[in-house]
Amino acid sequence: MKLPLGYRYSSLYAGIRKAAKDDLSLIVSDAPASAAGVFTQNKAMAAPVILSKKNLAATKGVASAILTNAGNANCATRTGMKVALETTRAVAKVLRVPASKVLVCSTGVIGVELDGSKITSKAKALADGLATDRFEDVVSAIMTTDLVPKKAHAAISVKGGAVHIAGTTKGSGMIQPLMATTLGYVMTDAALSPSELRGMLKRASARSYNAMSVDGDTSTNDTLFLLANGASGLKMTAKDKGVFEQALTVLLEDLARQIARDGEGAKKLVTIDVTGTKSDDEAMRIARQIGNSPLVKTAIAGSDPNWGRVIMAAGNAGVDFELRNVSITMQGMLVCKNGLAVDFSEEELTARLDEPDTHVTFAVKGGGNGGARFYTCDFTEGYIKINGSYRT
Amino acid sequence: MKLPLGYRYSSLYAGIRKAAKDDLSLIVSDAPASAAGVFTQNKAMAAPVILSKKNLAATKGVASAILTNAGNANCATRTGMKVALETTRAVAKVLRVPASKVLVCSTGVIGVELDGSKITSKAKALADGLATDRFEDVVSAIMTTDLVPKKAHAAISVKGGAVHIAGTTKGSGMIQPLMATTLGYVMTDAALSPSELRGMLKRASARSYNAMSVDGDTSTNDTLFLLANGASGLKMTAKDKGVFEQALTVLLEDLARQIARDGEGAKKLVTIDVTGTKSDDEAMRIARQIGNSPLVKTAIAGSDPNWGRVIMAAGNAGVDFELRNVSITMQGMLVCKNGLAVDFSEEELTARLDEPDTHVTFAVKGGGNGGARFYTCDFTEGYIKINGSYRT
Repeated sequence: MKLPLGYRYSSLYAGIRKAAKDDLSLIVSDAPASAAGVFTQNKAMAAPVILSKKNLAATKGVASAILTNAGNANCATRTGMKVALETTRAVAKVLRVPASKVLVCSTGVIGVELDGSKITSKAKALADGLATDRFEDVVSAIMTTDLVPKKAHAAISVKGGAVHIAGTTKGSGMIQPLMATTLGYVMTDAALSPSELRGMLKRASARSYNAMSVDGDTSTNDTLFLLANGASGLKMTAKDKGVFEQALTVLLEDLARQIARDGEGAKKLVTIDVTGTKSDDEAMRIARQIGNSPLVKTAIAGSDPNWGRVIMAAGNAGVDFELRNVSITMQGMLVCKNGLAVDFSEEELTARLDEPDTHVTFAVKGGGNGGARFYTCDFTEGYIKINGSYRT
Repeated sequence: MKLPLGYRYSSLYAGIRKAAKDDLSLIVSDAPASAAGVFTQNKAMAAPVILSKKNLAATKGVASAILTNAGNANCATRTGMKVALETTRAVAKVLRVPASKVLVCSTGVIGVELDGSKITSKAKALADGLATDRFEDVVSAIMTTDLVPKKAHAAISVKGGAVHIAGTTKGSGMIQPLMATTLGYVMTDAALSPSELRGMLKRASARSYNAMSVDGDTSTNDTLFLLANGASGLKMTAKDKGVFEQALTVLLEDLARQIARDGEGAKKLVTIDVTGTKSDDEAMRIARQIGNSPLVKTAIAGSDPNWGRVIMAAGNAGVDFELRNVSITMQGMLVCKNGLAVDFSEEELTARLDEPDTHVTFAVKGGGNGGARFYTCDFTEGYIKINGSYRT
């Protein structure tokens, strides 16, 4: 798939993480781009999140670059804001753009001082490495415990040609984004205003990143950026913009699914559909409760058709429903009707649960038209192994 | 420790669970006892919970017996209420008490029909086995995935002698009681009215069972009963009753800790103290969020002093606080002061974290006088192993 026009990418190893794998990366829009961001709702917000929010406010939604380091979250450290400021300034200087137009993200361990000189000393080398065809290098350099790189592309035909979107994201643990995710960057060469971007990003992230979890823990550094630099040179009608937002939503859902599938220790992507509640919000609360239940997630890991745990989790969502109105399917097979067990071939369902994709539906009869879809992963011993020895 | 007077106990194997280990048990008060209960807040409430609530309401808080089966939750089944009714009636008949004075609990798998005849056919044998010295048999017969039996005793001196309390509980997974726990029974020979019992049980459970979790999943069958039959023959002053409530609270905290320590796969009991918030409720929300975070719990399993995850979890509690006012200790060692890393011996702390008890404090400076204590356990691969193959 073609990349959006007018962007260049770079990455290198700056010695921030122990493994000698690129840990510093830069995305540059040749012309200042319209920019929107959604961020973690964690009260313990990292310095780069605070600075990026401030910069977006100061520029009213314009950005030239996104600087990212992996291996250190630059959160809960003495020098956090100083490092965020000095590193964005160093990059702004070599790019010859205002420092307020450089957005910044950090990801990695919390509470360990980040040595800013490791980044400032590499600013020139990073800028020298910029190239239009190095998108994949950035995709790889933002990874931490991720096992697979995550990216997605889209193209929207408009009069005179097509505008393109490219997105990348990272994340595998500490994942329950609320208003954003761990890290996600989406670039397009469409011409859209900052306020148009903000509306689109808010609506699209609600249906994608904010409807996904790995472990129910919301990071201190979650950030999702959307840049639009207009480099396609194409005008978009109101209808084109509607199609663009649809494509953006599909692309963000794709990225969100990639995160869930690569959840720490995960072997299965789990999709949960809830229907028939009074409101979409009620459906999402039930879907999230099911998707975050360790007992549901371990049952799925073990290919155990233990739908009683789905009932248990849904009952804890704080949403009123009658058990006798509930029907549940797993892998398309009805396992619970009107709140009661139905006969099903346990052998066949167990076999179907061995597939890499698990689908659970929870339908409430006569409750209303509310519905929601939530993505998560199964919960295996691998998660414990990874997280019992992450820091030390 | 002496058992309270006027109670008898019995258990036997009724073939409800596969393993040939007693799965049916009965607690009888020779005289009708004042009774109070707290129950699950899960919307998907099991039939025995519904019936026990109904019976307590009908009798205005009087009970003669508690019937328990392990191996099947009698929840989300076609015959749930029918089985709960016929089994309590069968027991009532052999005990010659009204059926409304028999309380009933079930624990085990959800959504599988419970064959009531396995219980009704054993009602007489169960009653024949009743003896004052078989308390330990009940303690053992209510266990499911528990590795260790759980019980606690207390005695309160009053004029003319002492009244006694004996309590037992079970539970190891699907544990985040809200208003009660999995199963817990507390018997006393003190003379207390049903309304006195209700108040005491509500206050004491808020500080014990409702301040504890293993995995954040609230069961459909949680029930905690308190019986007082007055068999001590001793009168209690208002002051005696205050001392009794204190002893009851300590006893329930003890039982709650026993559950957390025996959490599925757990190797460590974790105690979390939060202080300095505006209210006790805010402190409890932060403590619960820390205690339910899979990342905090896996770090503790790995003896990893990763206090950044404590910050992360606390930040997600929906409580306002300034990171710069936060100090954290682990095993008595200061690891974070004013929201920032402090120097500590990582080697020493790692060694201290290998102990079977983990203590984390989270103090907010200048926020207020709110405080709370929460109990949980570490999160190991054992939890996944147990729950990936529970049903099949």
